[in-house]
Amino acid sequence: MAADVLFLHPGAMGARLAGSCRGAGRRLWLPDSRSDATTARAEREGLEAVETLGAAVARADIVVSICPPSAADSVADHVASAGFDGVYVDANAIAPTKARRIGRRFDRFIDGGIIGPPPTEPGTTRLYLSGRGDDPHDVAALWSGSELDARVIDGDIGAASALKMTYAAWTKGSAALLATIVAGADAMGVGDDLEREWDLSQPGLGERVQRTAAAVGPKAWRFTGEMTEIASTFADIGLPAGFWTAAAETYGRLAPLKEVDESTVDALVELLRSESS
Amino acid sequence: MAADVLFLHPGAMGARLAGSCRGAGRRLWLPDSRSDATTARAEREGLEAVETLGAAVARADIVVSICPPSAADSVADHVASAGFDGVYVDANAIAPTKARRIGRRFDRFIDGGIIGPPPTEPGTTRLYLSGRGDDPHDVAALWSGSELDARVIDGDIGAASALKMTYAAWTKGSAALLATIVAGADAMGVGDDLEREWDLSQPGLGERVQRTAAAVGPKAWRFTGEMTEIASTFADIGLPAGFWTAAAETYGRLAPLKEVDESTVDALVELLRSESS
Repeated sequence: MAADVLFLHPGAMGARLAGSCRGAGRRLWLPDSRSDATTARAEREGLEAVETLGAAVARADIVVSICPPSAADSVADHVASAGFDGVYVDANAIAPTKARRIGRRFDRFIDGGIIGPPPTEPGTTRLYLSGRGDDPHDVAALWSGSELDARVIDGDIGAASALKMTYAAWTKGSAALLATIVAGADAMGVGDDLEREWDLSQPGLGERVQRTAAAVGPKAWRFTGEMTEIASTFADIGLPAGFWTAAAETYGRLAPLKEVDESTVDALVELLRSESS
Repeated sequence: MAADVLFLHPGAMGARLAGSCRGAGRRLWLPDSRSDATTARAEREGLEAVETLGAAVARADIVVSICPPSAADSVADHVASAGFDGVYVDANAIAPTKARRIGRRFDRFIDGGIIGPPPTEPGTTRLYLSGRGDDPHDVAALWSGSELDARVIDGDIGAASALKMTYAAWTKGSAALLATIVAGADAMGVGDDLEREWDLSQPGLGERVQRTAAAVGPKAWRFTGEMTEIASTFADIGLPAGFWTAAAETYGRLAPLKEVDESTVDALVELLRSESS
C-alpha cells in the first residue's frame, strides 16, 4: 500500500516537492496558521488538508520537513512531541551536525538536501537522501518518474546535508562575495574602472553580476539563515567559516529586496552601502 | 632628460616592471641584504646597483615601491627618512587607507596597483596609477610602448589601490572560497557527490578547482597579507569583510605549498584539513 506523506510546509519548494510526489498515497498538509499563499499552493498541488498536527502525524507514514533552516528544529520538535513513529525526512538546508541532532529524536530518520529550483520539469532539481537501511531508497522511490530526481547517496545521516551545504557554499557564497565587491568598488568610486578591467581579464564576470542581482535580490531575505548553517558546517570541521558569516551579513542587508519587482545591480549596491559607514 | 627610477625591490613582479620601464634614464636597485634570486633578476633586467639607500634616493627622480603588502610601510619610511624629495610611487597591494597614510610622508606621491602577472608580452598586465596633477601621467609614460600597460585612472590617492583591492577580492577571494569548499566536502565524505552535482549544474567549476590548485598553491604564502589588506579595505567602508579574513586563513594554511613542485587539489585539501579539528 502506498505511503501517506505529510509535507511541513508547502512553500514554493515544498509545494512542488509534494506535487511531484507521484508514489505517495495521500499527500497531506497542515493549514493551521499558514498564509493564503501557502493555502493556494497546497490546493493547486492537490494536497489534502488535515486539521491538527496530532491527526496528521497519526495518518502519515512519512513526514517531509521542508521549511526555513531556522525552523527545522521546532518543526521536528512538534512532530516528535505529537508522537510520530514513522519515517521523518528532514530536507532542509541545515548543517550536518544539526541534522544528526534532529535525527536523534526519531527512530527512523532520513537526511535530505535539495539542489535546484522548485521542479517543474525533469532535470533541474535533485533531492539527495542519506541514512540507514532501505528507508532512503523507499523514500526516493516516491518520486520515481517525476520532475524531481531523488537520489540516495552513501554516508549516514549528515551526508545529504553536507552535500547541500557545500553546494550552496559556492553558489550563494560566491554571489554574496561578488555583490559585496561591486558595492565596495562603487563606494570607493572605482566601479567603472573595475568593470572595464573585468571586461579585459575576467570575461563574463560583468554579466554574472547582472544575473546575480536579478536572481539573488528577491531571495536574499531567506539566504541569511542558510549562510549561517553553512558557517556552522565549516566551523564544526575546523575550516575557515568567515566566508559565510560575511555572506549572511550581505544577504541580511539585501533582505528589503523581497519587496521589489525588479532587482538591479544599482538596487543591491544602494542597500549594501546604506548600512556602511 | 629621462628620469632615473629606483625600484624597491625587484621580486618577480618588480624586476619585470623595472625591465619594461623603457622611458627611464637609469634604472636603479639596492642589493643591500637582498637574496641571490633578487640579484639574478636585477642583473637579467639590466638594473644598476647602488650601494646605499642614501645614495640611491639622492640619484633617483622616482622611487617605485613594489614589495609584500606588509613591507609597504617600512619601505616608505626608509625612503622618506633618507630624505627623498622626488615622486614616490607605491605600487603595492594595500588598502586605500594605508596608501593615503603612506602618501602623507611625501610631497609628491602616486598610488599604484598592478593587475596581471609579471609582464613578458603586451596585453597581460596593467599598472593603474592615481594621484594629483601631471605626475601620474608622467610616470605612466615611462612604460609607453612596453609590455606593461600603465594607465592613469580618475580619483585621488587611493583609487588605484581600491581598484587593485576589489579586483583581487574576487580572483583570490573566490579561489580561497572554492578551495575551502572542496576541503570541506572531502572532510565530510561528500567530495565525489559534490563533483558529480557540479558536473550536472555548475559546468566548468570542477575544472576551475583543478586550475585553482595548480595556480594558487605555490603563491598562497604571499596572498595572506593581501587578503588582510582587502579585509581592511572593506571594513574601512563598513562592508562585510569576513570573506577575506577567512581567505587569509585559507592561504595561511596553504603556505607550505611554496616548497612543492606540483600543487594538486589533493595537496590543497590535505593542508587545509591538517589544521582542522
